[in-house]
Amino acid sequence: MSSSPTSNERTEAADRDPEWLPGIDDIRAAAERIAGAAIVTPLLEARAIGEALGARVFVKAEVLQRTGSFKFRGAYNRLSRLSAEEKKRGVVAFSSGNHAQGVAAAARALAMPAVIVMPSDAPTIKLENTRAYGADVVTYDRASGDREAIAAKLTRERGAILVPSYDDPFIIAGQGTLGLEAAAQLKALGITPDLALAPIGGGGLISGTSTALKDAYPGIEIWGVEPAGFDDHCRSFAAGRRVGAPAGARSFCDALLVAMPGRMTFAINRRTLAGAVAVTDTEVAYAMAAAFRDLKLVVEPGGAAGLAGLLARKVEARKRTVLVVLSGGNVDRATFCGALAQAEAAAR
Amino acid sequence: MSSSPTSNERTEAADRDPEWLPGIDDIRAAAERIAGAAIVTPLLEARAIGEALGARVFVKAEVLQRTGSFKFRGAYNRLSRLSAEEKKRGVVAFSSGNHAQGVAAAARALAMPAVIVMPSDAPTIKLENTRAYGADVVTYDRASGDREAIAAKLTRERGAILVPSYDDPFIIAGQGTLGLEAAAQLKALGITPDLALAPIGGGGLISGTSTALKDAYPGIEIWGVEPAGFDDHCRSFAAGRRVGAPAGARSFCDALLVAMPGRMTFAINRRTLAGAVAVTDTEVAYAMAAAFRDLKLVVEPGGAAGLAGLLARKVEARKRTVLVVLSGGNVDRATFCGALAQAEAAAR
Repeated sequence: MSSSPTSNERTEAADRDPEWLPGIDDIRAAAERIAGAAIVTPLLEARAIGEALGARVFVKAEVLQRTGSFKFRGAYNRLSRLSAEEKKRGVVAFSSGNHAQGVAAAARALAMPAVIVMPSDAPTIKLENTRAYGADVVTYDRASGDREAIAAKLTRERGAILVPSYDDPFIIAGQGTLGLEAAAQLKALGITPDLALAPIGGGGLISGTSTALKDAYPGIEIWGVEPAGFDDHCRSFAAGRRVGAPAGARSFCDALLVAMPGRMTFAINRRTLAGAVAVTDTEVAYAMAAAFRDLKLVVEPGGAAGLAGLLARKVEARKRTVLVVLSGGNVDRATFCGALAQAEAAAR
Repeated sequence: MSSSPTSNERTEAADRDPEWLPGIDDIRAAAERIAGAAIVTPLLEARAIGEALGARVFVKAEVLQRTGSFKFRGAYNRLSRLSAEEKKRGVVAFSSGNHAQGVAAAARALAMPAVIVMPSDAPTIKLENTRAYGADVVTYDRASGDREAIAAKLTRERGAILVPSYDDPFIIAGQGTLGLEAAAQLKALGITPDLALAPIGGGGLISGTSTALKDAYPGIEIWGVEPAGFDDHCRSFAAGRRVGAPAGARSFCDALLVAMPGRMTFAINRRTLAGAVAVTDTEVAYAMAAAFRDLKLVVEPGGAAGLAGLLARKVEARKRTVLVVLSGGNVDRATFCGALAQAEAAAR
């Protein structure tokens, strides 16, 4: 159930100039752009989980988004900014699967061609869905292939536009619409959250979402949760600069196997986040089982990391009002049922 | 994965007088009563499923309701109508599990005691949750016990009120709020449904829901879906009167093992429904797998019957706009994962 890391983003020297980073206005513009195309996903109270923790817990059920993850938001926002001429040339992306589906579905919705470079051992559901959305899928071997080189070659050959998976202002602003929506939903309920948790891979989701949440609730404390062994954000926050995690780690959180924070995303996250914590695969499996049992939601390993951080009490939640982002649900049956069985055995 | 039938509702002579049956005004009153207590569950478009069928398909994700099924609606409506003196004496119910949880949670919300009579082989999640909501649970053996006699004795001993699981106007009106909500959600999207499918056990959900849907959309065609072997509604529609299904059948749809239509519910359903169709356990497993894969929702066997009827093409959906009720999601891990594995094997 484990996979090795996929990221080669080892660029150093985070940009310290905040001028060019997307802010709340960019997120509001993105929200207008994706309205009607993306789903306003429900905010659900997790009563049983809240009772167990002595907290009030709300989950943003982003597994119900188009393509089964938040990635559609950023992809649609990015692609809808392309010129007519660029749309004709189409887009190229590389992704372990959720960004792949997001770009493929957004490209179809906006009637442009898409080529996606994916690892051959990506979850079957992610490979199949990306093809079903009409994209050309080019697979490579995680161990020996260089996805960035493959994508660069395709981009050159086709004159197509490369769509980054997180280090792009329009991608970040698009993912930030999740936070904007959650804030509006919480306000409609008259609820002020004290604490928020979301998964971190490259940091696109949480950089946009934390920008929107901090705008609505300046006092909110926001934590990123990453898989143990891919704790580059934990290390980077401790060091005060971008630091990679050592190579060779494994985790079944296939969507979060990024070994270095993004340059743009980290420049945002160092200002908006309280910090990051890491969770084991067993803690993630337990969170997937809790979502299955108490929320009736299918959450993939990477999508459950935020909930895992909460349930494993990596952050103190007692007597607090908590927002948790369940960011994706694209998981194969065997992985999902394996995680539920593991959690059940561990609980005995 | 199979269980035997549980119902002894063999009362004959359906009441043909429609005067006393709950109507749209009762459902509207119920909606006001449950507002704030029950969740307005999301209406989600099932894009992949719609594309496969050449139809437009929307699901009412009632698995996200409090207690994980629609039963909280009727129970809360019924219990909130009790007098202060009746509330003090408390309530008794018998149920295979979803009505049990609905009554237990509603009793807790309204601060009254509840005793629930449940079969000892009910899904573990249903037994555990009913206890977690604070109810006293009395178990009996499905094969040899008489749950109605046990409930009657408890009712006498405690002076408590028996809460029927479907044949009660306040229960029916409460379940009808699901249809009222779905109609409002469809209207907000500017969508007119041609067709609706929902599971049938005793017929409480579909009698209330069809009343509300027919009020909003007089031309809509509504079908009930029941497990093969428990096709008492199919038989009753064919006969034009309430007819039981033969004893001895088995199905893993534990929430739908009722062998005879309700008296009140059938008096409504014979006017509002186009008919009923039956689905096999394999067809239900396939629907559970489709909900897992394409909707990221955990649906229990009985809750997936409506979707199973659609996917097994028991009703013609092509070029139509379809509403499907996913009525409950309380299922144990082993049953759920067994169904997904069965569906995957059958698809090969």
